[in-house]
Amino acid sequence: MIISLKEIALLTESEIFGDEGLFINKPARIEEAETGDLTFLYLSQYAKYLESTKAAAIFVKPGFQKTRKDITYLEVKDPNKAFAKVLIHFFNNVSELIGIDKSAFIDATATIGNNVSIGKNVVISANCKIGDNTKIFHNTVLLENVEVGSNSLLYQNISVRENCKIGDGVIIHANSVIGSDGFGYIQNEKKEYQKIPQIGNVVIEDNVEIGSNVSLDRAALGSTLIKKGTKIDNLVQVAHNVVIGEHTAISGQTGISGSSKVGNYCVFGGQVGLAGHLEIGDGVMLAAQSGVAKSITKPGIYFGSPAKDRTEAFRTEGHLRNLENYVERIKALEKKISELEEKLNK
Amino acid sequence: MIISLKEIALLTESEIFGDEGLFINKPARIEEAETGDLTFLYLSQYAKYLESTKAAAIFVKPGFQKTRKDITYLEVKDPNKAFAKVLIHFFNNVSELIGIDKSAFIDATATIGNNVSIGKNVVISANCKIGDNTKIFHNTVLLENVEVGSNSLLYQNISVRENCKIGDGVIIHANSVIGSDGFGYIQNEKKEYQKIPQIGNVVIEDNVEIGSNVSLDRAALGSTLIKKGTKIDNLVQVAHNVVIGEHTAISGQTGISGSSKVGNYCVFGGQVGLAGHLEIGDGVMLAAQSGVAKSITKPGIYFGSPAKDRTEAFRTEGHLRNLENYVERIKALEKKISELEEKLNK
Amino acid sequence: MIISLKEIALLTESEIFGDEGLFINKPARIEEAETGDLTFLYLSQYAKYLESTKAAAIFVKPGFQKTRKDITYLEVKDPNKAFAKVLIHFFNNVSELIGIDKSAFIDATATIGNNVSIGKNVVISANCKIGDNTKIFHNTVLLENVEVGSNSLLYQNISVRENCKIGDGVIIHANSVIGSDGFGYIQNEKKEYQKIPQIGNVVIEDNVEIGSNVSLDRAALGSTLIKKGTKIDNLVQVAHNVVIGEHTAISGQTGISGSSKVGNYCVFGGQVGLAGHLEIGDGVMLAAQSGVAKSITKPGIYFGSPAKDRTEAFRTEGHLRNLENYVERIKALEKKISELEEKLNK
Repeated sequence: MIISLKEIALLTESEIFGDEGLFINKPARIEEAETGDLTFLYLSQYAKYLESTKAAAIFVKPGFQKTRKDITYLEVKDPNKAFAKVLIHFFNNVSELIGIDKSAFIDATATIGNNVSIGKNVVISANCKIGDNTKIFHNTVLLENVEVGSNSLLYQNISVRENCKIGDGVIIHANSVIGSDGFGYIQNEKKEYQKIPQIGNVVIEDNVEIGSNVSLDRAALGSTLIKKGTKIDNLVQVAHNVVIGEHTAISGQTGISGSSKVGNYCVFGGQVGLAGHLEIGDGVMLAAQSGVAKSITKPGIYFGSPAKDRTEAFRTEGHLRNLENYVERIKALEKKISELEEKLNK
Repeated sequence: MIISLKEIALLTESEIFGDEGLFINKPARIEEAETGDLTFLYLSQYAKYLESTKAAAIFVKPGFQKTRKDITYLEVKDPNKAFAKVLIHFFNNVSELIGIDKSAFIDATATIGNNVSIGKNVVISANCKIGDNTKIFHNTVLLENVEVGSNSLLYQNISVRENCKIGDGVIIHANSVIGSDGFGYIQNEKKEYQKIPQIGNVVIEDNVEIGSNVSLDRAALGSTLIKKGTKIDNLVQVAHNVVIGEHTAISGQTGISGSSKVGNYCVFGGQVGLAGHLEIGDGVMLAAQSGVAKSITKPGIYFGSPAKDRTEAFRTEGHLRNLENYVERIKALEKKISELEEKLNK
Repeated sequence: MIISLKEIALLTESEIFGDEGLFINKPARIEEAETGDLTFLYLSQYAKYLESTKAAAIFVKPGFQKTRKDITYLEVKDPNKAFAKVLIHFFNNVSELIGIDKSAFIDATATIGNNVSIGKNVVISANCKIGDNTKIFHNTVLLENVEVGSNSLLYQNISVRENCKIGDGVIIHANSVIGSDGFGYIQNEKKEYQKIPQIGNVVIEDNVEIGSNVSLDRAALGSTLIKKGTKIDNLVQVAHNVVIGEHTAISGQTGISGSSKVGNYCVFGGQVGLAGHLEIGDGVMLAAQSGVAKSITKPGIYFGSPAKDRTEAFRTEGHLRNLENYVERIKALEKKISELEEKLNK
C-alpha cells in the first residue's frame, strides 16, 4: 500500500515540513519503522528513537525542533490522534469470514439477516436473530433467543447464553462469556449455599466492544446492561445486575460487583475492584488497582484501596513516603524533651 | 406465570398485610417492577424506590412503616431470603438441551448414563463416564478418563483435561478450564525453566458451582480438590494442589497459589490473592483485594494487603486517614519545643 | 511403574542411606504418599508429615536427622529439584492425541508438517503453517496466516487470530486467546471512542508456555512479543505491543499494560499490575499484587502498590505496623510539653 503524504496531511489537518511529494509505505512505531514508513512522536520517552528512526515522515507537535533534515515532519496538535486517524482511514479491515459455513448449525426458527457470515461449528439456537452484515466466527455458541444486531462481529469460541441481546456495531473478542449465571446464593440453616435462579439476561447496546476472556453475568432479575459506546478490555468481570453507562472505558482485569451502577464517560484503569450496590457518577476516573467500597458521585480522579480523591490519595502517598522522616522527628522530639526536663529539674 | 400471594406467603412463612387474594405476575427488582409484580426491600439504599415502584406486593421486615396503601406487604424476617425462595421454587429452570446431538463425538469406550443431554460438537474422549441426567452443552471438550456425576451441568466451550473427576449436582459455567497444567518448573544451571510434569488431576465434589472463565489447575501429584458445596465465581485462578474446603464461597478474580489449603465455610471477596503453601482455617472471611502471605488459623474477618485481622486493619486504616493530622501535631510539637528551648536559654 | 532407587540416585546425584535395593512405585507428596512411594522434604512446614508418611524413600538435604529407620533417605542438595528431575525423567508424557481427525477443517492452502496431530472440530484457516510433531487439540481455531512451529502443543478451545506466529516447543493451555485486538481508541469531539485498527500481531518464541484463559493482545503496529523460554501462568493479560524478555516467569492474573517492556530472567508474582510504556530491566522480581507505575532498571526485589525496592517497602510496612505506637508517642510528647510549659509559666 502506497499513500500520498498530501492525502495524509489533508485527512489529519496537519502541516507538511519537508518533502510534500512523499509517498508512505506503511505506518510504524518510531523504533520499528523501516525506510519509507510514517511514524509519530507523542510520549517524551520515545524521543530517544528520533535520531535513529528510519521513518520517512513523522507526526510531531507544532513548533517541534526539526533537527533531522532527512525526515519530513507533519505538524499537528495531537500527533497520536492524527496517526490513529491514518490507521482508521486506511487500515480498517477485519478478519476474513465470508458466507455461512455448512458445518454451522442454524436452528430452523432462527432469523438470519442479509450478508451475514457464520463460521465453522457455530451454533445458533432456536429463535435467535442475527442482523445484516454481522460476522460470527468459528466455534462460537449462541443459546436460544439470543439477538445480535447489524454490523456486529463475534470472534471465535464465544459463549452467549439464552435471551441475551447484543446491539449493532458491537465487537466481542474471542472466548468471552455473555450471560453466565450471577453469583447468587442464600445459605440454609446448615450454612449450605442454595442457588438463586438467575432469570435475567445481559443487554449490550450499540457500538460496545468487549475484550477476550471477559465474563458478563446475566442479571438475577431484569438485565445486566452495558450502554452504548462503552469499551471493556480483556478478562473483566461484570457481575449480575451491573449497569455500565455510555462511552465508558473499563481496562483489563477490572471487576465490578453485583448491582453496582457506573456512569457515563468514566475511565477505569486495570485491576480495579468495585464492591456491590455502589453508584459511580459520570466522569469518574479510577487509577489502576483502585478498590472502591463506597459510592462516588463527584467527577474526578480517584485511586488507592480504599480509593480516595486524587488530592487526598497523593497526600497520603506522600506521607507514607515520609514516614521514616516523621519517626526520626518523633525520636528527636523525645530526646529534646528529656533534655529539657533534665535541665528544668536541675 | 400467575402465582397466588397466599401460596407465596405459605412458602416463605411471611405475613400478608393487604390484599390476601392477590395474584403475582413475576418477581422483579424494586426499581424495575411493573404492575402486578412481586418485589422486596432489603438494603436501605433501595428504600428510595419504594415511593415510585409499580410492584403489587413487597417483602419487608416485620414492623415496616407501611406508608403506601396501594401495595400489599409481606412481612418476613429476611426479605431477601424469602424473595430468593420464591425464585428457587417457581423459576428453577435451566437452559434447554435435550438428547444427544449427532454432531457430538462420544468415544466407543465412554459410558453415558440415562437421560444425558450432549450438545453439538461436544467431545467425550476415551473411558469418560457421564452420570444420569447430566447436561453437557455445545463445543465442550472432555479429554480421556474424565468422570462427571449425575445431575450435573456443563455449559459451552468448557475444557476438561484428562483424568479429572467431577461429582453430582455440579454446575460449571462456560469457557472454564478444569485441569490445565500447574505452573511448575525448575531452573537449570543456565536459569532456563524446565517443566515439571503435572501428573495429578482435579477433583470437584458434589454440588460445587464453578463460574465462567475459571482456571482450575491439575495437581503436580495427587489432586487439586474442591470440596462439596463450595461456590467459585468467574475468572478465579486455583493453582496446583490447592484444597478448598466445604461450603466455601470464592468471589470473582481471586487467585489461590499452589498447595494452599482453604477451610470450610470461608468467604473470600473479589480479587483476593493467597500465597502458596498457606493454611486458611474454617470460617475465615477475607474482604475484597486482600493479600494473604501467612496462614490464618482463627475464624474472623480479615482485610488489607498484607491482610490483617479486621480490628487491626481498621485501626491502621484510621491512622492512615489521620496521617495529615499527626504530621501537623509533630510540627506543632517542634515549634513549641524550640520556643521552650529559647525561653530556657534566655 | 516400578523404578529402581539406584537409578533414581544416579539420575539425581543423591546418596542413599538405607535400602539400596529398593524399588519405588510412584512419586507422591509427603502427606499423600502410599506404601512404596518416593517423596521429598523441602519446605519446613511439611516436616510435620515425616512421622506419619507411608513413603518408602524420601529426598532430604545432606545431614538430615534420620529419626525414622523404616524409610530410605536420599541426600541431595536440592530435594525439590531432585524430585522434579525424577518426574521429568519418568513421567514426561502428554495428553493423548493421534492423527488428524476427519472433523477438523484444514484449508487447502495450509501447510501441515509430519506427524502432526489435529483434534476434532479444529479450524486451520488459509495459509497456516504447522510444524512437525505439533499437536492441536479439539475445537481450537487458528485464523489465516498463523504459523505454529514444531513440537508445540495447543490444548482445547484456544483462539489464535490471524497472522500470529508461534515458535517451536511452545505449550498453550486451553481457552487462551492469542492476538485479540489491543484496547486502543481515540476520543472524538463528542468524547465517543473510535477504534484504532490493531494491525500488528503476536509473536511467541520457542519454548514459551502460556497458561489457560490467558489474553495476549496483538500489537497496534508491529508485534506483541514473548521471547524464548518465558512462562506465563493462567488468566494473565498482556496488552498490545508489550515485549516480555527471555526466561521470565509471570504468575497468574498479572496484567501488563500496553507497550511496556519486561526484561530477561524476571519473576512476577500473582496479580501484579504494570502501567503502560514502562521498562522493567533484567532480573527484576515483583512480589504478588505489586503495582508498578514507573520503570525499574535495577535488578532486585520490589513490592507494594506503588511498588518499592524491598528494603524501602519493608521499612514502610514496619512503620505501618507501628503507627499505633507512633501516635501514642505523639500523645505522650504533647502531654509532656504542656506540663513543661505549665512549669515554666509558674
